[in-house]
Amino acid sequence: MIFILKHNTPLNAIQALQDKLAWMNLHGILIEQQGQYSIAIVSGMDEHTDLKQFALFPMIERIEPFTQPFKLASRAIKQERSVITLDGKTIGGGAFTVMAGPCSIESEEQIEQTAAHVAAAGATILRGGAFKPRTSPYDFQGLGAQGLHYMQRAAKKHQLLSVSEVMDVHDLDLIASHVDILQIGARNMQNFSLLKHAGHTGKPILLKRGLSATYMDFLMAAEYILQTGNPHVILCERGIRTFETYTRNTLDLAAVPILQELSHLPIIVDPSHGTGLRRLVPPMAYAALAAGADGLMIEVHPHPDRSISDAKQTISPETFQTMMSRLKTMHTTFRE
Amino acid sequence: MIFILKHNTPLNAIQALQDKLAWMNLHGILIEQQGQYSIAIVSGMDEHTDLKQFALFPMIERIEPFTQPFKLASRAIKQERSVITLDGKTIGGGAFTVMAGPCSIESEEQIEQTAAHVAAAGATILRGGAFKPRTSPYDFQGLGAQGLHYMQRAAKKHQLLSVSEVMDVHDLDLIASHVDILQIGARNMQNFSLLKHAGHTGKPILLKRGLSATYMDFLMAAEYILQTGNPHVILCERGIRTFETYTRNTLDLAAVPILQELSHLPIIVDPSHGTGLRRLVPPMAYAALAAGADGLMIEVHPHPDRSISDAKQTISPETFQTMMSRLKTMHTTFRE
Amino acid sequence: MIFILKHNTPLNAIQALQDKLAWMNLHGILIEQQGQYSIAIVSGMDEHTDLKQFALFPMIERIEPFTQPFKLASRAIKQERSVITLDGKTIGGGAFTVMAGPCSIESEEQIEQTAAHVAAAGATILRGGAFKPRTSPYDFQGLGAQGLHYMQRAAKKHQLLSVSEVMDVHDLDLIASHVDILQIGARNMQNFSLLKHAGHTGKPILLKRGLSATYMDFLMAAEYILQTGNPHVILCERGIRTFETYTRNTLDLAAVPILQELSHLPIIVDPSHGTGLRRLVPPMAYAALAAGADGLMIEVHPHPDRSISDAKQTISPETFQTMMSRLKTMHTTFRE
Amino acid sequence: MIFILKHNTPLNAIQALQDKLAWMNLHGILIEQQGQYSIAIVSGMDEHTDLKQFALFPMIERIEPFTQPFKLASRAIKQERSVITLDGKTIGGGAFTVMAGPCSIESEEQIEQTAAHVAAAGATILRGGAFKPRTSPYDFQGLGAQGLHYMQRAAKKHQLLSVSEVMDVHDLDLIASHVDILQIGARNMQNFSLLKHAGHTGKPILLKRGLSATYMDFLMAAEYILQTGNPHVILCERGIRTFETYTRNTLDLAAVPILQELSHLPIIVDPSHGTGLRRLVPPMAYAALAAGADGLMIEVHPHPDRSISDAKQTISPETFQTMMSRLKTMHTTFRE
Repeated sequence: MIFILKHNTPLNAIQALQDKLAWMNLHGILIEQQGQYSIAIVSGMDEHTDLKQFALFPMIERIEPFTQPFKLASRAIKQERSVITLDGKTIGGGAFTVMAGPCSIESEEQIEQTAAHVAAAGATILRGGAFKPRTSPYDFQGLGAQGLHYMQRAAKKHQLLSVSEVMDVHDLDLIASHVDILQIGARNMQNFSLLKHAGHTGKPILLKRGLSATYMDFLMAAEYILQTGNPHVILCERGIRTFETYTRNTLDLAAVPILQELSHLPIIVDPSHGTGLRRLVPPMAYAALAAGADGLMIEVHPHPDRSISDAKQTISPETFQTMMSRLKTMHTTFRE
Repeated sequence: MIFILKHNTPLNAIQALQDKLAWMNLHGILIEQQGQYSIAIVSGMDEHTDLKQFALFPMIERIEPFTQPFKLASRAIKQERSVITLDGKTIGGGAFTVMAGPCSIESEEQIEQTAAHVAAAGATILRGGAFKPRTSPYDFQGLGAQGLHYMQRAAKKHQLLSVSEVMDVHDLDLIASHVDILQIGARNMQNFSLLKHAGHTGKPILLKRGLSATYMDFLMAAEYILQTGNPHVILCERGIRTFETYTRNTLDLAAVPILQELSHLPIIVDPSHGTGLRRLVPPMAYAALAAGADGLMIEVHPHPDRSISDAKQTISPETFQTMMSRLKTMHTTFRE
Repeated sequence: MIFILKHNTPLNAIQALQDKLAWMNLHGILIEQQGQYSIAIVSGMDEHTDLKQFALFPMIERIEPFTQPFKLASRAIKQERSVITLDGKTIGGGAFTVMAGPCSIESEEQIEQTAAHVAAAGATILRGGAFKPRTSPYDFQGLGAQGLHYMQRAAKKHQLLSVSEVMDVHDLDLIASHVDILQIGARNMQNFSLLKHAGHTGKPILLKRGLSATYMDFLMAAEYILQTGNPHVILCERGIRTFETYTRNTLDLAAVPILQELSHLPIIVDPSHGTGLRRLVPPMAYAALAAGADGLMIEVHPHPDRSISDAKQTISPETFQTMMSRLKTMHTTFRE
Repeated sequence: MIFILKHNTPLNAIQALQDKLAWMNLHGILIEQQGQYSIAIVSGMDEHTDLKQFALFPMIERIEPFTQPFKLASRAIKQERSVITLDGKTIGGGAFTVMAGPCSIESEEQIEQTAAHVAAAGATILRGGAFKPRTSPYDFQGLGAQGLHYMQRAAKKHQLLSVSEVMDVHDLDLIASHVDILQIGARNMQNFSLLKHAGHTGKPILLKRGLSATYMDFLMAAEYILQTGNPHVILCERGIRTFETYTRNTLDLAAVPILQELSHLPIIVDPSHGTGLRRLVPPMAYAALAAGADGLMIEVHPHPDRSISDAKQTISPETFQTMMSRLKTMHTTFRE
């Protein structure tokens, strides 16, 4: 339930209402949208909860139900779409933000070269993995702290923001001290413990859709982060697992308009993981922009074929630049 | 295997080669691409077939293997992309062709109004179902012959081509005499008997991808039609069945660049069935164009909410017009 | 809706009720279960239909709604489970019926040898394909009429019933004149035209679940057959298409108790197609019996490795015999 | 690669071989099977690794390749099937082990009553969740440490082993000090950090298959645990996510014989999560035994309808007892 409050409700009246809810073991969250205050009851209700009495509270304009199981992620709580601003760069709100870089950070030179290329082509965020979630324990697991250090230097030099995946609560502080955005990968989308700890850092979180996560599952996972009080969640569609194995995953672009309808959170698309095939990255990137996505995450490597991981889905700086140039034209025409 | 023949190979030498193949129980198909003749062996080979002797035939420039199980649908046989031209209207070849109309033909007035609207907005082909494949035998099964008659009149009046689904070999002649393009629906994609009979009409065939068809299955189904000697096949991506049930199907837009890479056949996208939700039709239509599709199939009804079938995924003429106008701008910018 | 009639309702009163329904354009079907008559309204109802007036008919005991979209297939219409009896052999009703034989009929000797083996091991129905639905038009398409003739002889000699797939309305009469049970394959499960024509032959129909058919889709397909007045439908679970490609399909054994709960129709399991791997056939056959299936369909060939089609999932007569022996012990213990 | 050593190879020769491997940066693991020693190289190999020189080592009988990406989980390394023995109770090796109990531990009385019932019916392991992975942050998250304490008491009193899920590395020590077996849930199957930490406790680990995990993914996840030196891994098939939503998941019983063929690890089946429907639990339990499973995990609650979580899939003690009795008969007959 959401209590929409009248304009000019004094703060002490709001406090009294909050106290009343707390007394009833209900968890109410105060929301402000364009000067309008509401209190959303996000937990504590059961079949015995009686909200009828609140009809008498003079500062309550009306009471509306939640139609979805997620609450803080819903448009019921926040009609306007969320925009995340970091160092003057924005995600959401009409911008088309491109995050690019190698799957794994492999060397100082590799990340530095990639950063130079992607910055020149118009990306604003550098991606790179230092701790890698690999299906096999025998595959390269990333450079760890050293990799983060290389990435931090490269990002700073080229005035890029940075994003890197966190797999373990243990590494959270280390990663949070080196990058601007924390990524939670598809395999950890329902690692609820990690979601909560990552949320508590206060850093923006890039949350990737799980391989078999429905839209509801995805938004409920975002809710775990939002519940910590951290509102900076970026959703990322990266393909789901289906019977079709020609592509690594099936990129579900309808997720873009649907998640924008259900939620105020920005949503970007990862066509590299979403297809697993290098030559499909540009057409799916164009399609993502046309579907209304707020941005992209793209795997780029100075020498894609020498990439230690995800080589088949990684594009070269040249392909990236051509693609970015076309995306800019599309964005200008399409979003006018 | 494909025998690529030397330029200037005389016809009687080609005939001798064909005779030799026939004698070996091999089925060779003569192909001409930009003046270059080849003979593709599409069936009859087994582990005992010995093609080494052909190395001695002087008119054979080289012998190449098929890398895919489909042959006539492959780019190995036809490098340039196929274009279908009917009454001066084209499908494929840089055009962006829009087929639009109601799910079911419901009355003369309904199909006439729809035709007027979609023609005015820029569609060139009228769609409408007269024989409907319904999951339930208790649902409306279509107006049959009467519906085809209404559609034929409406299409002619507005100078539109027409397309309608055929479900039964028994109805083939009737439908073929009223419409320009025969549609084979997703549920019948592997109704091999229907594929062959439809192919033999010589009419262009719009073949929809089955709900659980891989790209290989899809192209093998097209191969059944092509084998009849009818080269006019249009592929249609219309969503696959996955675990996500918020949408009716999961629209797989990566199918567009993949099928264009594997095959020379044109491919269009049906965002109406691909999503099942009216408000997703425009964004997915834009995304389909951006992914490189050769066109769209869209369900439009003068009064979508009164539509007897597929109401939830049918858009109004007004929405259609707005969408078409944006598609034209995108097409101009994007395909320059 | 179902009108449950009082005991001793005279026939002329039933007729009067039927006339009234017909006058209202409602299609009512008379059902008799253990001496109790009911009339099920299976079609014609819309939002304007007013059944309140029937409350006044003295012979109507009560009116119950259908809770499922399928009607003739439902337990609402027929509580007791259906049993099909042919030449003293039964399917359903506590029997455990095994249908066995080669994927394709390849020669008179092959089908005769197989028939001898499977009859000796306890199978009562011989399976064999004469018209084969092959993904590729270049694969072996079956021996056709000649194959049917071979199978008919072999079945007769070994006192087996026979079942063979029909893919085309055109072949219906031919196949129906040679075999006891008509099979409709997974790819044709929603070939509604074929379902109806096959139903009209009056022969028992073995209906295989489509690769991506939900339980609802499956029962609605059965409904198309039942609607023709032919009550002899046998359902067959044969695996669905999922992301797991190690097996050809994912055998969904929960379908057995679920379909038995939703429907009175017998249900058998095909572990050959359900797994695609020979060594999985026995364990999945045991599991199917334990889950409560009414029988099995198994691919057996005198020389599995030489099988023209489906070799990888075909078992030898020796394996079949060992498996049958264990199934008999299990059946005795389990169904006591 | 696996080096199979000759019988009577002296230990110092083995050590010399290990040293050589270490010098080449290869990770070799010493294995003993029925008196036969082998060294399996589980990591460190790349395209430059040259093993030819080892052909000259006199103690090496032969060198065999790994055919699968998993190694320690494979039958190549361990032909005989693994058996886990705890307090005289065994998992694997011909036993049929049943783990039963509530989804969540709700109170001391609830877990105590359940323990009494399931012990009396023949279960040997008590299950119960203290830390619950819930899709929604607003759902009951478990009693935590208090719940573990209740379960420990109940298990001890009824001479049961116990198993409970661990979601967070932070809780590992606490849970490991209260229960005999640690469960890693489906959503955390690829939480590689958790797998490694759990492995290091040395406790047996029950690893549930992820909702969209292939057999390969599943065994690679087990490999992460085995790599820590902990050989006590129990696999659990609990259903996968497919297009069919009538059931909560699609229980994939073919996983049982396949995983037994690929791996030496014991495998049990969870028909409660595998179907999500109470009335399907017994038939799927019987089917699991028939398919060759090493045991079951079943949700039982004294009052299923009052269960805080998973009520729809939880059975009563009475149903459990009837089911256990039938399973015992089947086991006796079937595994004779």
